[in-house]
Amino acid sequence: MIERIAILGTGLLGTSAGLALRAAGYRSSIVGWNRSPEQAQVAMGMGAIDSVSADPLQAARESQVTLLAVPIFATLELMEKLAGVLGPEHLVTDVGSTKAQITAAGCRLFNTPERAGFLPGHPMAGKERGGAAQADAKLFRGAVWLFTDDPACQRSPQSAELAANWREMVVAMGSKIANVNAMRHDELVAWLSHLPQFTATALSALLEDEWGDAPELKDVGGRGLREMTRLGASPFSMWRDIAHTNTTAVEAALLALEQRIAYLRENLRTPALREEFEKANRFRQER
Amino acid sequence: MIERIAILGTGLLGTSAGLALRAAGYRSSIVGWNRSPEQAQVAMGMGAIDSVSADPLQAARESQVTLLAVPIFATLELMEKLAGVLGPEHLVTDVGSTKAQITAAGCRLFNTPERAGFLPGHPMAGKERGGAAQADAKLFRGAVWLFTDDPACQRSPQSAELAANWREMVVAMGSKIANVNAMRHDELVAWLSHLPQFTATALSALLEDEWGDAPELKDVGGRGLREMTRLGASPFSMWRDIAHTNTTAVEAALLALEQRIAYLRENLRTPALREEFEKANRFRQER
Repeated sequence: MIERIAILGTGLLGTSAGLALRAAGYRSSIVGWNRSPEQAQVAMGMGAIDSVSADPLQAARESQVTLLAVPIFATLELMEKLAGVLGPEHLVTDVGSTKAQITAAGCRLFNTPERAGFLPGHPMAGKERGGAAQADAKLFRGAVWLFTDDPACQRSPQSAELAANWREMVVAMGSKIANVNAMRHDELVAWLSHLPQFTATALSALLEDEWGDAPELKDVGGRGLREMTRLGASPFSMWRDIAHTNTTAVEAALLALEQRIAYLRENLRTPALREEFEKANRFRQER
Repeated sequence: MIERIAILGTGLLGTSAGLALRAAGYRSSIVGWNRSPEQAQVAMGMGAIDSVSADPLQAARESQVTLLAVPIFATLELMEKLAGVLGPEHLVTDVGSTKAQITAAGCRLFNTPERAGFLPGHPMAGKERGGAAQADAKLFRGAVWLFTDDPACQRSPQSAELAANWREMVVAMGSKIANVNAMRHDELVAWLSHLPQFTATALSALLEDEWGDAPELKDVGGRGLREMTRLGASPFSMWRDIAHTNTTAVEAALLALEQRIAYLRENLRTPALREEFEKANRFRQER
């Protein structure tokens, strides 16, 4: 049983995880750390953590499981530091949105019988705005929590047990678990998560330039416009790291969409437009 | 006071208009016609119309106000036919999604003191799936109902009064009225309605080709993917006419988006990405 958890990064996901753990009946201690201490205070005020630490390494050392819930580069940096201070009685896990670099760092820095274990994770849940105040105990309910564990990992028995416990807790928080290879994960999310995001960003930025000052904007925009630009509110701070760590796959997906839009544009008055609509209909029917 | 209304086309919008008129307290008769008689029966079963006509021209002749709620080319065709059988005691109005051609046809075929009046309208409301069964008395509540009337129109006194009455009924159905020039309307909707639709279609068709068979699709897709592809379910039958009647403006909007996505793709690792996110954030904050 896990008796002490450290949550490093009490933004939307970290704070929601704390609330979800409490809602799932986890009664032992949760210590939180955040780069901006005010966010940690907000998380504590919401009951997601029960103490605030000023030192992430000490908080991790005093816990059995450490959840990294910070942007990807901050995750990689903390992994470097934590590897030096934790031992085989510890498990580190994360929620980062790209997994190839983090999973590789997990193999390089953790996951030998003498070292702490590292379990790379990615809950498919979020909101377009971050921050502890947006946190929600139900954020992970019905979501899929992906793990990109490398089967070659040789964990210590203690950290292997903690990894199994953490997976149980994820299920208790209401998520379904799925396991996927880290490279395959990054390819999948490039198309199914990052492509929709960057498309919404490009569309929103374009409309801001072209129509941001138009007085008719409030009259003409309907539900479709709102939906297609909602992700335009997403914070750069999170997406910068995704763009940097999944560049090649995202580039390929964006280029394919540019070509697809051009094809549709060239066929606005030809029968090929019907085929595009029928394919799009099919994609939706199957979901 | 309007004493008899004909609804030609009892799909989603026509049937919703009948239900909304009833909900707003309109007690006089509503006759309905639909190319497929079954849809008219569904509308009657829902209480949106109280009789079904087999002849759209006769239904219009026996009514004071005729609402055209069919695709754009069918609207233009019915306008040609109705102009020959209606007189200055009649008003025709519509719900078509592009307005330049329809408004021009209204000036050419209607809107002299000896002829029926024509009031071009476009409620900014809809669903991604059509059909009478999807109809909703609340569909127009809180929506903007645009009119693209040509101020040069010289309507008969009777049809001018019916046009004023129809505008009051639109408000009674819960919509806000806005007036806009027809050319400006088509430019606005090209960017704010048609561009989001065709983007969702291109994205959905692309994902169907690339990932339609992938077993992981159900695990990886989140709320963002669902939202960005929801409009992919839209029917070709409606969008074909929009693509044909607003081609130039839609082409320009699609080309601009292709270039914007390419710009974002080329800047995934440069500071320009931050500017794109900040512009997108601004577009959303202002809504």
